Amino acid sequence: MIRAKIIGAGGYGGVGMTELLLGHPEAEIACLVDVADIGKPISDIYLHLRGHCDMPIIDPSDPVAAEPVDVVFLATPDGVGMKLAGNILESGAKVIDYSGDFRFNSRESYAEYARRIGRPVDHVSPDLLPTSVYGLAELHRDDITQDRRLVGNPGCFAVSCILGLAPAVEQALLEPGTMICDCKTGVSGAGKKPAAAFHYPARYQTMNAYRLSGHQHVCEIERELGLLCNAETKITFTAQVVPVCRGIMSTLYGKLTKDLTEDRLFELYCNRYADDAFVKVSRSDVAASSSDVRGTNCCSLVVSVDPRTNIMRVVSYIDNLVKGQAGNALQNMNLLFGLPETMGLDRPGQYP
Amino acid sequence: MIRAKIIGAGGYGGVGMTELLLGHPEAEIACLVDVADIGKPISDIYLHLRGHCDMPIIDPSDPVAAEPVDVVFLATPDGVGMKLAGNILESGAKVIDYSGDFRFNSRESYAEYARRIGRPVDHVSPDLLPTSVYGLAELHRDDITQDRRLVGNPGCFAVSCILGLAPAVEQALLEPGTMICDCKTGVSGAGKKPAAAFHYPARYQTMNAYRLSGHQHVCEIERELGLLCNAETKITFTAQVVPVCRGIMSTLYGKLTKDLTEDRLFELYCNRYADDAFVKVSRSDVAASSSDVRGTNCCSLVVSVDPRTNIMRVVSYIDNLVKGQAGNALQNMNLLFGLPETMGLDRPGQYP
Amino acid sequence: MIRAKIIGAGGYGGVGMTELLLGHPEAEIACLVDVADIGKPISDIYLHLRGHCDMPIIDPSDPVAAEPVDVVFLATPDGVGMKLAGNILESGAKVIDYSGDFRFNSRESYAEYARRIGRPVDHVSPDLLPTSVYGLAELHRDDITQDRRLVGNPGCFAVSCILGLAPAVEQALLEPGTMICDCKTGVSGAGKKPAAAFHYPARYQTMNAYRLSGHQHVCEIERELGLLCNAETKITFTAQVVPVCRGIMSTLYGKLTKDLTEDRLFELYCNRYADDAFVKVSRSDVAASSSDVRGTNCCSLVVSVDPRTNIMRVVSYIDNLVKGQAGNALQNMNLLFGLPETMGLDRPGQYP
Amino acid sequence: MIRAKIIGAGGYGGVGMTELLLGHPEAEIACLVDVADIGKPISDIYLHLRGHCDMPIIDPSDPVAAEPVDVVFLATPDGVGMKLAGNILESGAKVIDYSGDFRFNSRESYAEYARRIGRPVDHVSPDLLPTSVYGLAELHRDDITQDRRLVGNPGCFAVSCILGLAPAVEQALLEPGTMICDCKTGVSGAGKKPAAAFHYPARYQTMNAYRLSGHQHVCEIERELGLLCNAETKITFTAQVVPVCRGIMSTLYGKLTKDLTEDRLFELYCNRYADDAFVKVSRSDVAASSSDVRGTNCCSLVVSVDPRTNIMRVVSYIDNLVKGQAGNALQNMNLLFGLPETMGLDRPGQYP
Repeated sequence: MIRAKIIGAGGYGGVGMTELLLGHPEAEIACLVDVADIGKPISDIYLHLRGHCDMPIIDPSDPVAAEPVDVVFLATPDGVGMKLAGNILESGAKVIDYSGDFRFNSRESYAEYARRIGRPVDHVSPDLLPTSVYGLAELHRDDITQDRRLVGNPGCFAVSCILGLAPAVEQALLEPGTMICDCKTGVSGAGKKPAAAFHYPARYQTMNAYRLSGHQHVCEIERELGLLCNAETKITFTAQVVPVCRGIMSTLYGKLTKDLTEDRLFELYCNRYADDAFVKVSRSDVAASSSDVRGTNCCSLVVSVDPRTNIMRVVSYIDNLVKGQAGNALQNMNLLFGLPETMGLDRPGQYP
Repeated sequence: MIRAKIIGAGGYGGVGMTELLLGHPEAEIACLVDVADIGKPISDIYLHLRGHCDMPIIDPSDPVAAEPVDVVFLATPDGVGMKLAGNILESGAKVIDYSGDFRFNSRESYAEYARRIGRPVDHVSPDLLPTSVYGLAELHRDDITQDRRLVGNPGCFAVSCILGLAPAVEQALLEPGTMICDCKTGVSGAGKKPAAAFHYPARYQTMNAYRLSGHQHVCEIERELGLLCNAETKITFTAQVVPVCRGIMSTLYGKLTKDLTEDRLFELYCNRYADDAFVKVSRSDVAASSSDVRGTNCCSLVVSVDPRTNIMRVVSYIDNLVKGQAGNALQNMNLLFGLPETMGLDRPGQYP
Repeated sequence: MIRAKIIGAGGYGGVGMTELLLGHPEAEIACLVDVADIGKPISDIYLHLRGHCDMPIIDPSDPVAAEPVDVVFLATPDGVGMKLAGNILESGAKVIDYSGDFRFNSRESYAEYARRIGRPVDHVSPDLLPTSVYGLAELHRDDITQDRRLVGNPGCFAVSCILGLAPAVEQALLEPGTMICDCKTGVSGAGKKPAAAFHYPARYQTMNAYRLSGHQHVCEIERELGLLCNAETKITFTAQVVPVCRGIMSTLYGKLTKDLTEDRLFELYCNRYADDAFVKVSRSDVAASSSDVRGTNCCSLVVSVDPRTNIMRVVSYIDNLVKGQAGNALQNMNLLFGLPETMGLDRPGQYP
Repeated sequence: MIRAKIIGAGGYGGVGMTELLLGHPEAEIACLVDVADIGKPISDIYLHLRGHCDMPIIDPSDPVAAEPVDVVFLATPDGVGMKLAGNILESGAKVIDYSGDFRFNSRESYAEYARRIGRPVDHVSPDLLPTSVYGLAELHRDDITQDRRLVGNPGCFAVSCILGLAPAVEQALLEPGTMICDCKTGVSGAGKKPAAAFHYPARYQTMNAYRLSGHQHVCEIERELGLLCNAETKITFTAQVVPVCRGIMSTLYGKLTKDLTEDRLFELYCNRYADDAFVKVSRSDVAASSSDVRGTNCCSLVVSVDPRTNIMRVVSYIDNLVKGQAGNALQNMNLLFGLPETMGLDRPGQYP
């Protein structure tokens, strides 16, 4: 059994990982670490876990937290993973970090990201950066191997945009500078901490755009798309919140460099993702929605072309807490340990 | 492997059973039967099943529907099961019926139920009634055995009320005629068919009481409670809908026959359900809610006493589509086939 | 024009009053006072007020706040009004307080209330208590007159319960000790301040009972009902939150002292409220709901009798922020100034 | 008093007009016409109107429906207004039609619209088309005058897109062919009729794009924008539904023809709408949302420029049932009768 430790166990990202590990046949939870609610059983905070996982939350300094494990999930905000990863790796465990700390593999690319999001530009563990891989299996499966020890799990918006645009970009189908990512997220993406904008009465019927001046996931999207087309790539990105709990719907646009039918585009996307169990491609006449992927690790892509303007439009649906976070992290764990990629992730969601 | 057929596969009750069977290690779906959408893969109707179950919906007259199976789930409305059960039982399969058709085991008790809900009072298969068992394992586990072949799965409100009141009633703690069941249900309880009262704009912020003149689940609640206290029992029951999709919160009241502390009541309820994996009992200082049981087969009971009025109050939470329907039906299947009662039902829900 | 000052202008109770005063033909807002967001236009905090009311929020110590006005709305929590009311009254203004501070008119009755809700039992302005009136016009219209200068605006749950039970209680129709108030409220009742239980992801599909050990509105309900029947009265009260923003649905039960038909009960309630513009009484076959009263000062009562148990059941719907708070306060203002009771309150809500 | 008749009074568009007319000081409802629920008081169907408007719904053939009125609101689907308008105009009344029937003022332009949306291309009253005006006052105020007798009220998406793009287009700021309208609507836009996609359980947490092959409002948007820049104009348009009841959020993109700061763009938009009471322009640092305009006739525009890609982005918020329908129609009525444009429309919404 793979023994897993979750740091940041009390947040939505942590509890999502706990839920998934409870259903994984080859992994088990070693301990749950956080800096609040120390000593409380996790099932006192999340009552749905009663009887399934009643472990207490322990402090990072707790001796139990120091016992050797095989993998550590860092369900922590930017700036934490870069401080902890070194010691964890030395202890022999592998690290999967949820934040932006290890999504970039050079000092310079990290600095650019940090600058954009207003954080200190110096990474505290720069030597680890080249050993890290961007944990999106659909693009980097061959690099997420048993030899690998450090994974930067992608941002939720990034997963939806990159998967939705990659096939077109790598085929050079889109004119540079025309890509627009119009993204709508559910509220759980903002985490567990109460805030005025996510107070039920303020949110229950409210949709709005936010951070119009720039979102932290833009960097990694541009980097990944740029790698695919071998050119510097810029996107226009709009983050929006709508009153759902889980789900991202990213509507992705780009001017086509040549005429292309929806059928041809569909075929091209199907081929690209033929070996990706978690990506489902549909034509525009399929009534896809965010609910189809809720609670699952799937990404549902609906491809279309507006023949009047020759603009490609891909609608990309994911569950921000699963394929956009814990589920994708578990997919990475499977790859890091040589397990089938879908292990523990192959059940359907619940509807309605 | 137990081969299961679902009749009424296209409704919420059917799809809930499909989801559960896909995760059950000892059962498999033989075929999906319904009278609409014939020939369509179930995954065209419920896109979240794509890749998990792509079987077509078949007509009851389809030869495939006639192939022998081990169990048939009748996810059908009142009046259907009583017509179909005889032939199914003759074919050797067991039957678990979702409707009220087999919740009563005499011609007379069925007639009373039918009268109250305005249906024909004559059961079309009256000879089967004595062979049926009321499928609530927490009360009738010893009767839901491998010898049994026909189960009437309880109504969703009934599950929440009976489990919440049974321990008090069987200890004769409540004065006759004082029991009140104030029940609030999510909208999915009304099924898949669109209706004016469940149209999103009419419902998204609407709560209301309905069927104030009488609800179809009252009969079985009174019958079950009456059996426990050996006396004719009447309840006052209010059905209400609130804008959630899944979940029932039943607040249950009764005048205590003697002084009782919350602690003593808690102990009594804990003892009563000590061997019931799906029932969780809490004191009134626990922040329980409908979300704790969402997507699971659990019933969460919060017990309290108002010392000023000496009225007992139990708040009972279930997921109406799981413990209130498909999950409870699967629990019954496990018992009918000698499997562990929790098989395929022991995973936690997802939060948030 | 009546010049009105709102203290606590930044909360939901304050903004509701601002909205109403903007539409009142005989009143105008003099100033908006609060202790946070000083100097900001109220329309920067509540963008829907842009162009309608762009006054800045001012500090209580601001000279403008000291300018004479005709009425002060204290949209403040328990303990504030009792400190401020004396000076305001001396300045010549009338006071309408939202909190429990002036709902009781003796030192003793206040102390009992304070004890139950865990506050200091000594009122800081006990001499004002006898001058205060409980501001529920439907019961105390004759006492809310131009001579009156101090009003304790009732609690939201209390409005719904008292209006729903008063006609039966004053006719001695209910057996003592059998009254149960099963109350469900929308989330806005908890105010503007973010909290874990009202964070959108924690609430969007969550219903739960809370404060099972006792709610602060019970005291005033029991006092008012006691006055109506001339006897000490106790109720069993359950507070519950459901995922709506606005609205209270209180389902009220009581054992009838004699047989009574729904028709007779309906007639009795209609007669009782014949002169109350804001109370609407329906039989149980009317499809009433919380949405009918959303955004309005109405209370909708649906009366019924369960003939099997002889228990009366009244479902009482209000908008907790209007009839349960600001609207009712404006109704009181109208009475205090000799204006038609419905002035500024007679528009329908919006649907859907 | 202006006497107004509403045809299609039972739908959301009709009831919205009834609500508004009840608060209009110079207009009154003459009669409510529909083809269903004949004879029922409108307040039996919409209980929030009880005591405010208890008129019965009458059949089009009812003699009362033939009594002369000053204005008729045709809250009816495509194809109805073109049949009725002729007779109404002959009777002396003015006509404001909600559908696409009179949004185009030539046989040819109507035919193109009809072709795109799959309706018969021949208008049944082609002679009326040249007398009609597109009822968007912010663009055509000078043509919506007391001389005018026929108005085609715009589509809800169209209002949000045209108001959001017009200032940029008329200044030739955008490169042809680069405009993208990414539109999200609340569910009430689909009307009152229950449908599978708008059934609460199917919708409560579901967001999706729909009609990817083309939406009926595209024609009028392209026509209006084309008129502003004197060139044939094509847009790429995506319709999406999110789980809110009321509200449209349209995110509008276009490649700038020259460098432009957000400040300059803000100034330009402010100037353009300086005389438009219902349009509010904000910079991107304002926390605007759909809730700011809920229940009101306002359009809130947030302007920004992505300096990295030189793409303009305007987020346009309206209430689809008010500025997107009944409110805008009333604004048109005011203009047709020489009344102040904001009469009956100048109250703030309610929050939260």
